[in-house]
Amino acid sequence: MTDTADVTERARAPGGHDPPEGHEAAEMLASARRRVGPELRTAVASLPEALRRVALPSLGWGHADGTPTLGGAGAAAGPALVLAAVRALGGDPGAAARAAAAVELTHGRTRLHDGVLDRATARGGRPGDAVPGEVDVILAGDALQAVAQRLLAEDPHPGAPAAAVRLAACVVELCAARHAERVLEGRRCAEVSAAEWIAVAEAGAGALLGCACAIGAVYAGAGPEVADALDGFGRQAGLAFRLIDDVIGIWGDPARTGGPARAVLAAPRKPLPVVAALASGTPDGAALVGLYDRGPGERDPERVARAVERAGGRDWAQTQAADRMSRALGELARAVPDPERAGGLLALVEFLTRRPC
Amino acid sequence: MTDTADVTERARAPGGHDPPEGHEAAEMLASARRRVGPELRTAVASLPEALRRVALPSLGWGHADGTPTLGGAGAAAGPALVLAAVRALGGDPGAAARAAAAVELTHGRTRLHDGVLDRATARGGRPGDAVPGEVDVILAGDALQAVAQRLLAEDPHPGAPAAAVRLAACVVELCAARHAERVLEGRRCAEVSAAEWIAVAEAGAGALLGCACAIGAVYAGAGPEVADALDGFGRQAGLAFRLIDDVIGIWGDPARTGGPARAVLAAPRKPLPVVAALASGTPDGAALVGLYDRGPGERDPERVARAVERAGGRDWAQTQAADRMSRALGELARAVPDPERAGGLLALVEFLTRRPC
Repeated sequence: MTDTADVTERARAPGGHDPPEGHEAAEMLASARRRVGPELRTAVASLPEALRRVALPSLGWGHADGTPTLGGAGAAAGPALVLAAVRALGGDPGAAARAAAAVELTHGRTRLHDGVLDRATARGGRPGDAVPGEVDVILAGDALQAVAQRLLAEDPHPGAPAAAVRLAACVVELCAARHAERVLEGRRCAEVSAAEWIAVAEAGAGALLGCACAIGAVYAGAGPEVADALDGFGRQAGLAFRLIDDVIGIWGDPARTGGPARAVLAAPRKPLPVVAALASGTPDGAALVGLYDRGPGERDPERVARAVERAGGRDWAQTQAADRMSRALGELARAVPDPERAGGLLALVEFLTRRPC
Repeated sequence: MTDTADVTERARAPGGHDPPEGHEAAEMLASARRRVGPELRTAVASLPEALRRVALPSLGWGHADGTPTLGGAGAAAGPALVLAAVRALGGDPGAAARAAAAVELTHGRTRLHDGVLDRATARGGRPGDAVPGEVDVILAGDALQAVAQRLLAEDPHPGAPAAAVRLAACVVELCAARHAERVLEGRRCAEVSAAEWIAVAEAGAGALLGCACAIGAVYAGAGPEVADALDGFGRQAGLAFRLIDDVIGIWGDPARTGGPARAVLAAPRKPLPVVAALASGTPDGAALVGLYDRGPGERDPERVARAVERAGGRDWAQTQAADRMSRALGELARAVPDPERAGGLLALVEFLTRRPC
């Protein structure tokens, strides 16, 4: 499961309707889709048809058969953060459409390759052919990343080279985080601390959103310090989102979340409240370690959810989410001291992290 | 099998000794290794250790355990072409070391991901775990490509953005060619023309070498026409190399080539003389189609080699190789009209395509 993909899915309001609250954020997302859609379509048109067909759904704005999705250019959380950051720092969002498209293309690579890696991990290291043409998925991901870098290299904007450096560094960080996650998964549950898990989750869930904000800063002409602060804002907000999402995935009301209850407990990746409970050193944590060491077949989701809660995993995740959101706001204030100017970025992140629960 | 990898392997003289002929080219390769090695080492040092350990051997200058290869920085055919092109057009090769390293990193991505795709193809679409941590190989390839684009984005040289565009377009072309090759492999042998195969082979074997030469032109300050001509030079030479390599792989004297006889006939990819014979419409071609349609277990290599030769596959490949080398020389003369200035590029390509046979 791609962390960033979750935020993007979230950006799509249920049934295509925007909730009445969050109107400003919904409009920012819609505006990002309008601005970035044409850039994405032109960029992906250079791919051979078969790879384009694999690539389009990863961008959230096309069906697997290549026909465009009704309702516009997809979710565009990353592009919306790029444009909101440009606007918050007094730049021209219209000049950053290509950079925003490059972020979305990188998101596409990540979703495609993470899918291959997830299926591989589920099979003990051997990628299967759960989707038609696993080989084409790898190729389409490679091609999307190349197109992302091409867009930035072709962009005459003075911020483009620094944006290209940040995007490339982000890909390296995402790959490193994905590798580190595998290493942690391979260790015995009780031996991995919550701090180790959260460091990996911060990179996996936060690096691309942080990079989106930083690229927006660079396109507004801001210096590296401001860009780094906005990177921190997006990164901490992304991690807060992941924590909240995991809590809701375990304890959310299925009638309100729209997903099956406890589904996240059956996923190959352990939710963060679970890893905290496993590392808690409590009797419930120790019982949970026993359940996890015996494999997924042995785990009753209701029993796991109760043990995680008693071991403090739910409280830990909620405290962490609040802490990370507070760090995000601190970084935002550092980058954009005027609260009125910072309002757009804040509304967007609040909209993306708000969940029925 | 990575097409470009073959040229790179070739660049390593047997036993580490340079043959007495080709002294100029051998010196150019050694010089490229000296110039580019430090850039590569610094670039790859940013990767986490486990991914670095996977990535290093793909660059030909490190063992899988991370210790440096004795004897220098590997083969460096791509970097040597970049630097030779810069020199041929009167530029400063010292200013192009980062660009040359970016080409070598892209070569690394291609070798790593082609390995995954080859193992997948050999298993009917399901990548296996023939190397430890197939998942890490995918991640290391992604990271190498990101580092390649980062090097160019960080390079203040005025040619860097155009070089980054060409390198990204080259990756898209390599991915498209790899996909097209799979499509051809999936069709019935007799229904695919030699022209279709050679178009795919031109991209697969030629795109990165062409891109290396074009990037050299860009770094020398040449315009797009000259860069395109040098791209054509490298591309046609790369295809000529692939044709010669396939002929030698079938009919070369194992005592002189150092490889087992006919080994290329057992590889998953069909050699070009074979595809020409299959499409020849001759009685020997038809017999060969029958052999190939029955699967690899049915094919006696000696019988296949004789049938390919009688069906005209060997002559066709040799004629094609000569034709492609002549096209390469035409493109070189267009880009660098002074034969003395063109001498370095010519010597390099002749050295890379020369084989004991």
